[in-house]
Amino acid sequence: MSDRYSSLNLWMTTSRIETLVDGIFAIAMTLLVLSIGVPTITGHLSETAFQQQLWALWPNILCYALSFWILSGFWRTNHQQFQFIKRSNPTLITINVLWLLFIALMPFSTEIIAEYGGSYFTANVIFQLNLFFAGFIYILNWQYATRRGLLDENISEITIKTLNISSVILPILSIIALVLSYYVFAWSNLVYLIHPLLKKILNRYVNNSN
Amino acid sequence: MSDRYSSLNLWMTTSRIETLVDGIFAIAMTLLVLSIGVPTITGHLSETAFQQQLWALWPNILCYALSFWILSGFWRTNHQQFQFIKRSNPTLITINVLWLLFIALMPFSTEIIAEYGGSYFTANVIFQLNLFFAGFIYILNWQYATRRGLLDENISEITIKTLNISSVILPILSIIALVLSYYVFAWSNLVYLIHPLLKKILNRYVNNSN
Amino acid sequence: MSDRYSSLNLWMTTSRIETLVDGIFAIAMTLLVLSIGVPTITGHLSETAFQQQLWALWPNILCYALSFWILSGFWRTNHQQFQFIKRSNPTLITINVLWLLFIALMPFSTEIIAEYGGSYFTANVIFQLNLFFAGFIYILNWQYATRRGLLDENISEITIKTLNISSVILPILSIIALVLSYYVFAWSNLVYLIHPLLKKILNRYVNNSN
Amino acid sequence: MSDRYSSLNLWMTTSRIETLVDGIFAIAMTLLVLSIGVPTITGHLSETAFQQQLWALWPNILCYALSFWILSGFWRTNHQQFQFIKRSNPTLITINVLWLLFIALMPFSTEIIAEYGGSYFTANVIFQLNLFFAGFIYILNWQYATRRGLLDENISEITIKTLNISSVILPILSIIALVLSYYVFAWSNLVYLIHPLLKKILNRYVNNSN
Repeated sequence: MSDRYSSLNLWMTTSRIETLVDGIFAIAMTLLVLSIGVPTITGHLSETAFQQQLWALWPNILCYALSFWILSGFWRTNHQQFQFIKRSNPTLITINVLWLLFIALMPFSTEIIAEYGGSYFTANVIFQLNLFFAGFIYILNWQYATRRGLLDENISEITIKTLNISSVILPILSIIALVLSYYVFAWSNLVYLIHPLLKKILNRYVNNSN
Repeated sequence: MSDRYSSLNLWMTTSRIETLVDGIFAIAMTLLVLSIGVPTITGHLSETAFQQQLWALWPNILCYALSFWILSGFWRTNHQQFQFIKRSNPTLITINVLWLLFIALMPFSTEIIAEYGGSYFTANVIFQLNLFFAGFIYILNWQYATRRGLLDENISEITIKTLNISSVILPILSIIALVLSYYVFAWSNLVYLIHPLLKKILNRYVNNSN
Repeated sequence: MSDRYSSLNLWMTTSRIETLVDGIFAIAMTLLVLSIGVPTITGHLSETAFQQQLWALWPNILCYALSFWILSGFWRTNHQQFQFIKRSNPTLITINVLWLLFIALMPFSTEIIAEYGGSYFTANVIFQLNLFFAGFIYILNWQYATRRGLLDENISEITIKTLNISSVILPILSIIALVLSYYVFAWSNLVYLIHPLLKKILNRYVNNSN
Repeated sequence: MSDRYSSLNLWMTTSRIETLVDGIFAIAMTLLVLSIGVPTITGHLSETAFQQQLWALWPNILCYALSFWILSGFWRTNHQQFQFIKRSNPTLITINVLWLLFIALMPFSTEIIAEYGGSYFTANVIFQLNLFFAGFIYILNWQYATRRGLLDENISEITIKTLNISSVILPILSIIALVLSYYVFAWSNLVYLIHPLLKKILNRYVNNSN
């Protein structure tokens, strides 16, 4: 105990990490809306012409919804992992800060893909790499917490295993989306819709095999 | 218990959902202000000319205040429902994420109606549909929580019934506003001002009929 | 108890109001920074010319700092009042929502006064009225909470009186600033700097007279 | 106790300061992303030309990552100090509000240095002074809390000393970066990368010398 107090490498509770995470997610998810952008119309259009102007926004609205959904998936992963991570240390905070760096980058990547994902492969690469790194760092988060004994002591082996597998799904999906985007551009993002399904299947598989 | 731990379908407390909800509401409500937009004035105007420039902002300010008020209504509904919802599961989180998707869209819809709601029926349709879907999803939220036994066990039948009815008010108002907007454009939004009154009347009615 | 549960007019704890308040303040205070605006420079300037471009921002930076300070004053008032307000009801929430509506408007008013407060009296009127209404609503908040018995039961008469007086300072300052701004434009805002001093004097006065 | 209640100079818990701090950090860190700015492209470019457009953003992305990292460092310092600061008073709140004023200014300073830090010394001065003042105020925060007895009573002398030294690192780094920027412009920011290393070394040194 005195050792903890006499050192900067303090063991900390996780509550304030969770508050920062919730805050950054809330903001990143809401800032996404700025990527839609209200069209500037000068002069008076007919109702039909106005509808056409708005209709041009559909890729932006789709990307908004998609990124919102993906971000909520990351938030759930954090939620799930921190239900079992009971202690924190400077390295765990560093991992989470790096993760948040990629999370907070999402409004930028979303605007890139919403604007240019339909015509440029590079725009898709940026978006998918952003997701891949965010996902990859959260594999590290769970691995680190497991190995350093930061978990709840009552956690079962099977839960650890389930979350291990669960954390790998998103990064793999982003690689698949990256490859697909070479052929179908932003449509490749539709693979993220099978995320919940994949999670359920893997979960059932792990539980049955034990 | 071990079943809960060995499964990804974890039962969770609701505290972090509430934090995310509070965060997204705080941001969406504050981002609304960006829909007002400070006019750019070049050269020196007379005081009267300056006032006219600012006066042109009144529909934006009105829409800001209205959306702020409506969003606070949604927040209260969440507040009320989660006073009784004591447990959470992945489906409940999904429902709330979809709901937040429409909440976070409000700064966009508000700017659309503030800019174009006075001249285009379509602008009103977008705003009212946004509110309708947000309201509708929260009927589902309460229905789901009730049927899946996620509520506080001490809740009375009459409270369940009251919140049932209470959750229907906002979606109905948005349909009325939608229909009215065909004739009076953005003025139809004034129907939302009777929300608190309607709530009180229905509440009294339910309590008397029991 | 059953009466509470059978009614929509639920008595609520104040914790979620405080979360929403903290969230909206955090965002409004941070959004103020957008009112500064980075100048767009094309071509290469000399270091001195660049400094002149930045120097033109000083009224914006001053207004940013001032509004940040004033908002922190409002946050403290909320902090102080809710240290004693222990229960909540729908009317108290309505009062707070209306208050937050004016708080969230501050980034707009700040940009108005930063851009035009040096040349147009009307810009000052908008800023000061925004502050006046925010301040006035918080007199009502305290009055309402006191009369409806929402306070901590151990609160002393003198504390109630002190907070009564304390809540009046800011609205009065905004009226003074409003009048002064007719003569000295945005310089009138300097009166807000005496806020802490005034609070201390009044506090001492109340404590001595008892 | 009655003295506390009869006075506006209330002793307060620190929980709401922490909530405001977490909120402002979450927003400031996420707003940084707006300093990147998606390029506007008209007409259809070749994939290579598009990549060049995006490539031009690298100083902005670097500055985003750097400021995110520095801000997270400030947040950790706050986290560490408030693990031991157990009580609050109006002066402590004032210190923290002034500190937050410089924290919330970071999206502005980051955009300044991202846009102009490569060509103008003045841009670097602004960024480094912003960091210096933020760091300096947090030396004051710890000094004040220590002298006024706001700390946890079980804190050891060595922890106080460690945090004393720890709080000095960032302001010193900002002075070094300021001086270096005269010669190497924005590259001087690389000194911030040695922050964690310096912290570890100093920590070990303090612990050994006792």
